[in-house]
Amino acid sequence: MLDARSRRRRTLLGAGLAASVLVATGVGAAGAAPLAGDRTDAAKGAIQGGRARNVILFVGDGMGDSEITMARNYAKGADGRLNMDMLPLTGAYTTYSLHKDTGKPDYVTDSSAGATGWATGTKTYNGAISVDRFGRDLPTVLELAQKAGYVTGDVTTAELTDSTPAAIAAHVPDRSCQGPADMKECPQDAKEKGGPGSIAEQLVDHGVDVLMGGGKRRFDQTVTGGKYTGQTVLAQAQAQGYTTVFDSAGLTGVRKDQKVLGLFSPGIMPPRWNGPAATPFTAEGADNTVPQPCPDTSSAPAGQPTLERMTAEALRLLDAKAERNKDGRGFFLQVEGAGIDLLGHVSNPCSQIGETVGFDDAIALGRAYAAKHPDTLVIVTADHAHASQIVEYPQTAGNHSAGGIRTLLTTEGAPMVISYATNAGAPEAIQGHTGSQVRVAAQGPQAANVLGITNQTDLFHTMSRALGLR
Amino acid sequence: MLDARSRRRRTLLGAGLAASVLVATGVGAAGAAPLAGDRTDAAKGAIQGGRARNVILFVGDGMGDSEITMARNYAKGADGRLNMDMLPLTGAYTTYSLHKDTGKPDYVTDSSAGATGWATGTKTYNGAISVDRFGRDLPTVLELAQKAGYVTGDVTTAELTDSTPAAIAAHVPDRSCQGPADMKECPQDAKEKGGPGSIAEQLVDHGVDVLMGGGKRRFDQTVTGGKYTGQTVLAQAQAQGYTTVFDSAGLTGVRKDQKVLGLFSPGIMPPRWNGPAATPFTAEGADNTVPQPCPDTSSAPAGQPTLERMTAEALRLLDAKAERNKDGRGFFLQVEGAGIDLLGHVSNPCSQIGETVGFDDAIALGRAYAAKHPDTLVIVTADHAHASQIVEYPQTAGNHSAGGIRTLLTTEGAPMVISYATNAGAPEAIQGHTGSQVRVAAQGPQAANVLGITNQTDLFHTMSRALGLR
Repeated sequence: MLDARSRRRRTLLGAGLAASVLVATGVGAAGAAPLAGDRTDAAKGAIQGGRARNVILFVGDGMGDSEITMARNYAKGADGRLNMDMLPLTGAYTTYSLHKDTGKPDYVTDSSAGATGWATGTKTYNGAISVDRFGRDLPTVLELAQKAGYVTGDVTTAELTDSTPAAIAAHVPDRSCQGPADMKECPQDAKEKGGPGSIAEQLVDHGVDVLMGGGKRRFDQTVTGGKYTGQTVLAQAQAQGYTTVFDSAGLTGVRKDQKVLGLFSPGIMPPRWNGPAATPFTAEGADNTVPQPCPDTSSAPAGQPTLERMTAEALRLLDAKAERNKDGRGFFLQVEGAGIDLLGHVSNPCSQIGETVGFDDAIALGRAYAAKHPDTLVIVTADHAHASQIVEYPQTAGNHSAGGIRTLLTTEGAPMVISYATNAGAPEAIQGHTGSQVRVAAQGPQAANVLGITNQTDLFHTMSRALGLR
Repeated sequence: MLDARSRRRRTLLGAGLAASVLVATGVGAAGAAPLAGDRTDAAKGAIQGGRARNVILFVGDGMGDSEITMARNYAKGADGRLNMDMLPLTGAYTTYSLHKDTGKPDYVTDSSAGATGWATGTKTYNGAISVDRFGRDLPTVLELAQKAGYVTGDVTTAELTDSTPAAIAAHVPDRSCQGPADMKECPQDAKEKGGPGSIAEQLVDHGVDVLMGGGKRRFDQTVTGGKYTGQTVLAQAQAQGYTTVFDSAGLTGVRKDQKVLGLFSPGIMPPRWNGPAATPFTAEGADNTVPQPCPDTSSAPAGQPTLERMTAEALRLLDAKAERNKDGRGFFLQVEGAGIDLLGHVSNPCSQIGETVGFDDAIALGRAYAAKHPDTLVIVTADHAHASQIVEYPQTAGNHSAGGIRTLLTTEGAPMVISYATNAGAPEAIQGHTGSQVRVAAQGPQAANVLGITNQTDLFHTMSRALGLR
């Protein structure tokens, strides 16, 4: 029964990335020790007021409580613990967005409105990238931090121009306006119209110190107005002082005084684990009802860094750069695990779980950094919940999901059935987000503000206040 | 847009039950004020160690984060707050049970194994009522509290012999063994075999001070062994000193020095709100896709108390009885809102939401009691998550749930689509539980032990420790 776990663990460690940190922070540990005694004093000790030098915001896209539980069950066992489980202060927040026309709640947000929520403190419509319901730009916590002298970073496994990384440092009325050739829905924002340009152009123009993720194809597009007309966004970035890197080896060479733009995939960065998509129930004994471990393969091209590696480099660069701040201001870093959402949309439980585990490995690094720098506010949350549900085993002719299912054999040798049924016709159908409140967990200065039930927009205020922004 | 809310509010208050308490504790308030400033000191202040005089455990059966969000959106608005939202210390816990044969995790628990978890601190198999995987009885927190001199209560809207109220004070290897005529799965426990008898008999034999709920039909069955052979369980209870009551009027007359057995329905107590069940998508414009408020009706027979009323009486009786304890020991009370689960199984969103709101009204009373008696540990949690999901509006031919749907018009005039798809063939099919971790919220002595990620079984230790049990 330990085979699946051992095999997985070898895979993780076999990647050779920051293995010592993994061991030091307990990644891959078999399970949490039983809780011993009253934790009242520990809880009191975890509550810390005052200013934060740094904020590290980890966003699991589409990582509702169901998706967290799936990943824990599979990779650590039901009684095991993920790194994200170890943050001491926890709550839930609402994720709703607004209908653009009426201003009334839209109970199922997309990633754009969700990210705009914590980025700006304002509820907006699905599709909006840090603009309000009337299309007006809203300053983001990253921008306010940058203005106040903090170093800033934005890391993702999606395209850098996708909603979550976009909303923290760019403003367009439609999420599709990712590169200069993608401006159909945002004509007034195009550079040739005197606008701020696409998301790719804005990220670079805004001088975010560390930009890492996928989506090179957006930066290969040609700028259509202003000083850099006729050049690619990539060339513009280089002219503006960015070191551009395209693989793991390149990352190693980045000097700590440089701005860095890392683009490691033409589109999204492929998932680290693969496996079959969920399919509708047909009969007992069919392949989707027989418990099977996730295949032990990775589709990531050689030389492509993991989210963990990107996070490690981002922390190294931001920390070093912030050292030169004479006023003691540190950095703001957002790290997105994007594949939890993307692979949920296509009903692929192994890939979804693999992305959650990869995201959790990055969180271990954030916590290790915070252990050495306790003036760091670390937050782990999600933009919205997703379709995936853990349902009864075995699925039978008389009792089975109305959608697609897949039966996994977890690390502890137990069967776990995952169902995707928000859109009929799986696996071809794209599954949807769901409207449940989601977990928000934190440690460090002002982390206690995540307790209880808050709104996604409250997180903007928590982070801004901790950094002393106004 | 306020019509639905106003109408609902009138209904709630119109019931005439403890209206002053409702107002005092903010039930029915339109929405929470925006969070103002840093809550670090408030959080610190909410953390309280030491002993609890009383424990009030509120269990929303099947009340996952999705079900909480549904009820909040519908009844208070997305930005509004339920009473259960106001508990200051929050976390999530795992709910898995064990496969009886292998002892490996069963990632989707039923209510029996879930309740056995917090009742005894031991994981067990689905169907078990406070026995372990090998069928051995496990002492419950209620029993240990009673032994230590605490007064005890057990209140539910289900049958009193159903899993959740059963597991806190009875022991049988199968949840079906509810009355003396239901012992097919537990032959060795029958009274005529010298066993402890059915759940109904055990609840009474164990002398729980306050027993209130549905399930009179189980107590009308005839005892088949021992001293009370040939009498009904009800007659046995009366002989053992219970005052038996069957309606609201009867409750009023119960004296505070009496043990009380309140049985307010032959089976489960019917839901307070009604509405149509979810049905499969057929076409845009069909009745299940057009936003509609829940019908403003209640099927509860006249004279049947609400959960709120039962809770009010239970608190009054237990508090008065505990006053006579010379050592300062108070009471242990479990209150279950059962319909959240029961109506979820039959894909009925209005009834499910109505039961959640009714449960939340009971929580207001618990919090009001704790406000006057701060040495009270109040916990609000669930046994497991459920099938219901909030999905995208509008549902269309190209993008709709694979299961049953219903589109509600919430109090704030916005459309909310609820989907049930864990079992194909809704609404006839019985929907299943889901395996997500669920919320656990608390206030009072040792409440901080719910922070972070714990196991359902840890709650047994938190409650026992707070009451000083061993």
